[in-house]
Amino acid sequence: MDNKKIFLYDTTLRDGTQSEDVNFTVIDKIRIAERLIDFGIDCIEGGWPGSNPRDMEFFTKIQTVKNIDIHKISAFGSTRRAKKTCESDEIIQALLEANVPNITIFGKTWDLHVKEALKISLDENIDIISDTIRYLKQKVDRVFYDAEHFFDGYKANPDYTLKTLLAAKDAGADCVVLCETNGGAMPDEVAEIVKVVKNTLGDFPFGIHTHNDCEMAVANSVMAVRNGASHVQGTINGYGERCGNANLCSIIPNLQLKYGYNCINSENLSKLKSLSYFLDEIGNLKHFTHRPYVGNSAFAHKGGVHVSAILKNAKTYEHIEPELVGNTRRVLLSDLSGKSNLIYKAKEFGLDIDSKSETVQTLLNQLKDLENRGFQYEGAEASFELLIRNAMDEKTPEFFDIVSYRVIDEKNKALSVAPMAEATVKVTVKGEMEHVAAIGNGPVNALDNAIRKALVRFYPSLKSMELVDYKVRILSHNGTMATTRVLILSKDENSSWSTVGVAENIIDASYQALLDSIIYKLMKDSK
Amino acid sequence: MDNKKIFLYDTTLRDGTQSEDVNFTVIDKIRIAERLIDFGIDCIEGGWPGSNPRDMEFFTKIQTVKNIDIHKISAFGSTRRAKKTCESDEIIQALLEANVPNITIFGKTWDLHVKEALKISLDENIDIISDTIRYLKQKVDRVFYDAEHFFDGYKANPDYTLKTLLAAKDAGADCVVLCETNGGAMPDEVAEIVKVVKNTLGDFPFGIHTHNDCEMAVANSVMAVRNGASHVQGTINGYGERCGNANLCSIIPNLQLKYGYNCINSENLSKLKSLSYFLDEIGNLKHFTHRPYVGNSAFAHKGGVHVSAILKNAKTYEHIEPELVGNTRRVLLSDLSGKSNLIYKAKEFGLDIDSKSETVQTLLNQLKDLENRGFQYEGAEASFELLIRNAMDEKTPEFFDIVSYRVIDEKNKALSVAPMAEATVKVTVKGEMEHVAAIGNGPVNALDNAIRKALVRFYPSLKSMELVDYKVRILSHNGTMATTRVLILSKDENSSWSTVGVAENIIDASYQALLDSIIYKLMKDSK
Repeated sequence: MDNKKIFLYDTTLRDGTQSEDVNFTVIDKIRIAERLIDFGIDCIEGGWPGSNPRDMEFFTKIQTVKNIDIHKISAFGSTRRAKKTCESDEIIQALLEANVPNITIFGKTWDLHVKEALKISLDENIDIISDTIRYLKQKVDRVFYDAEHFFDGYKANPDYTLKTLLAAKDAGADCVVLCETNGGAMPDEVAEIVKVVKNTLGDFPFGIHTHNDCEMAVANSVMAVRNGASHVQGTINGYGERCGNANLCSIIPNLQLKYGYNCINSENLSKLKSLSYFLDEIGNLKHFTHRPYVGNSAFAHKGGVHVSAILKNAKTYEHIEPELVGNTRRVLLSDLSGKSNLIYKAKEFGLDIDSKSETVQTLLNQLKDLENRGFQYEGAEASFELLIRNAMDEKTPEFFDIVSYRVIDEKNKALSVAPMAEATVKVTVKGEMEHVAAIGNGPVNALDNAIRKALVRFYPSLKSMELVDYKVRILSHNGTMATTRVLILSKDENSSWSTVGVAENIIDASYQALLDSIIYKLMKDSK
Repeated sequence: MDNKKIFLYDTTLRDGTQSEDVNFTVIDKIRIAERLIDFGIDCIEGGWPGSNPRDMEFFTKIQTVKNIDIHKISAFGSTRRAKKTCESDEIIQALLEANVPNITIFGKTWDLHVKEALKISLDENIDIISDTIRYLKQKVDRVFYDAEHFFDGYKANPDYTLKTLLAAKDAGADCVVLCETNGGAMPDEVAEIVKVVKNTLGDFPFGIHTHNDCEMAVANSVMAVRNGASHVQGTINGYGERCGNANLCSIIPNLQLKYGYNCINSENLSKLKSLSYFLDEIGNLKHFTHRPYVGNSAFAHKGGVHVSAILKNAKTYEHIEPELVGNTRRVLLSDLSGKSNLIYKAKEFGLDIDSKSETVQTLLNQLKDLENRGFQYEGAEASFELLIRNAMDEKTPEFFDIVSYRVIDEKNKALSVAPMAEATVKVTVKGEMEHVAAIGNGPVNALDNAIRKALVRFYPSLKSMELVDYKVRILSHNGTMATTRVLILSKDENSSWSTVGVAENIIDASYQALLDSIIYKLMKDSK
């Protein structure tokens, strides 16, 4: 046996959904399970059958999905209740009804909980654990035992917690899992306690399950593995209740790239970023750009000193090659940046600029001027691409010309509580004039509606375009006279792009960013 | 000396601003510095004077701020360049021009960098370090030495890296700081290396500075402290380049509550959540709800099993009492904590509310509703005070009544490049009607001008009022249809105050915040 092999156990579909902002439908859950298996996860906890109808539906549906290797799916539940036998306990029977070859049950480990929550003797709790595992092990291939509150329990009564683990082992569990349920433990104490467990269990496999309440979930998982754990439980992107579960997107590359453990093959590792994005998309969650390894900023460099060093020798400011986890280096454009940034960036858009050409100097001057006025292209790559193209021979065609606009915002106590926003736009397209009006729930929304209303007859593809995010930032500090920067994120069925506008007037700044976004879309479609 | 005292060094204003999405103005930076000192941070790195004009402006302005203890401010820069003396190196001289009693300089530690980036001999680099520290130490009270890439350097050439530390110590540095610059180290190797440093430096104080590229920044910082470091560098909320710097909002409670280190007093610790929010608000960043200790979800319980256990005995599912860090448990029946907060807050404004009165319950319900709609009073204390006063008998008088307003924003290519913004306002004051018009360089500015133009005849003190800052935050993600929150900071010759408005329509949200600001000013003056 490969003693560096780590068994990856994913609980995104069960513990992950305990997160306040995570809700998956049954179809979502099946799509995620397919993706996780494809990625190389060893076992996927699908839910707690019996706790709610949706979880049972998942187990029913998953049986019929072709791509799913059912041997990688597990059902989760608790040990039998004190006053019931396994046969008579509906909770245990529901686990069997899930009809999957793996079952994970959690049991009490902390003496306080045995006495106060279960109100039974410590020995009786041991019987419950043994009993349940022995019973289930006759029915399914594998039984995993989650020792809830293991670390808090150990600190209160070490002997008893170890006894519960040995009981699970003796009853036939395939693996016992040390759960750091409250997320309050520190890595050095986890390491010490895991050493004792390792001594107690010998070669018997055990796992780790942590929570991130002290920002230590990843560290605690890794420390457990370093001291003998060979099974790791976690969720994609660290979804989970409170501060989340252990984040597999950090644990996997840490174990594999930093210590040489064998988690998944390296081809799959390079799908890590795309897996992380997929989960955010399905969960309708905002992508956290600073997420280790997989975030959009994880390999983004801003400081000018760094950038020139990066271009020389990436190793100096990057701990791994971003491609190993499917990420890419991003050079950010800020006032610190110079010519080398610009050329690097243009290359990303497939544009080759000669570093000695006049275009580069013109562009640099233009950029400097724009940045002084408050433009910022770090979050507005589509506007930047339009800028470069316009400076080169690759000019974007004039798709339309907006002659004038007017936005009216009105509130009158006598008429209504809500204010009214109306926009009118006069535009010429291909020699024809359009003059339209539209309302919106604010001035920018009204203007956006009016512009698109005027253009859609000529460019029907604008129908599929959507504004996803709209950000406003006030730059200088003269109260409401401040300069305003607007960032807009748009998308269609194929991609998303971001644009920027800057003006003293917030409507005008929004107008600029809206125009760039529409022009970018039309340019993209015309290719 | 208290050997459990940890020296807290904050670099939010310098390394934190390397984050892609963090941009502070000079006024922002000064407000943050005040807040950090009030919180109990020992030293605040203000910026890199000489690297850009904005950072130098910070050091000039901070000298004039009354509340700032200048002994807690540090300027950051690099060691002198190879071909210059300290006297002739503009970078070093700019550090002195910052005119603060602390200077932090970083130097090369990794032999690869000395040879490839500086292109000098290893000995020459040692001279540069010694020289720079010795020179600066004659000019200022304290010199901190940041050993860049310390851990990568140590792995390549341990002896040399230790030599650079000893050179810094011998040259008179007050503390040397081990920088985990690339964020690629694991906690067990950090612990091992720090042990060697401790043996090498003896009682000489050293610090730790980490990055979060492996989700290990907090763990690595804590492991360094466990093995002898007594100075910790980090940023609030872990802002920083790529995956961020070490998050002080997790490190401080971990060290203090889990190990008993002495970081700050416990009264200040209970301001942690509010500090974290304040930074997000000033930085115009979305609050990350799952953030350990300070996130809105950090003590939120969803699972039905958990919630009933929590109500019986909080300890079973919470690793600390949330109040220790100023957070609150979020279960359905959490009004108690809200109530005591409210009473505490009212007291700050000199208002005594009876905890058993109906007013408190009414206010709590009102607040809950407002917060659901997107109101947030963390950065808008004047609006909050008005809310409390209105709920009590202390009603603010009706100074004026705005009957209607209209804002027109117009752009016409044929007429001018700049758009035109005009506002009209109809208002009754003391039985008289005023109907005025004003222009502005944007719709909100025009509205502000018109309202004040109408009122100033009746309330001349409004002349001395000024809007200092105007922030816009988009709350939900439906493109330009999103809900908008506006925060306004106003001042007169005596004080400054902040107000909030929330609406779908940005003009209406701004209008609400403007009104609150004017009413607050008039209330203040009428006393």
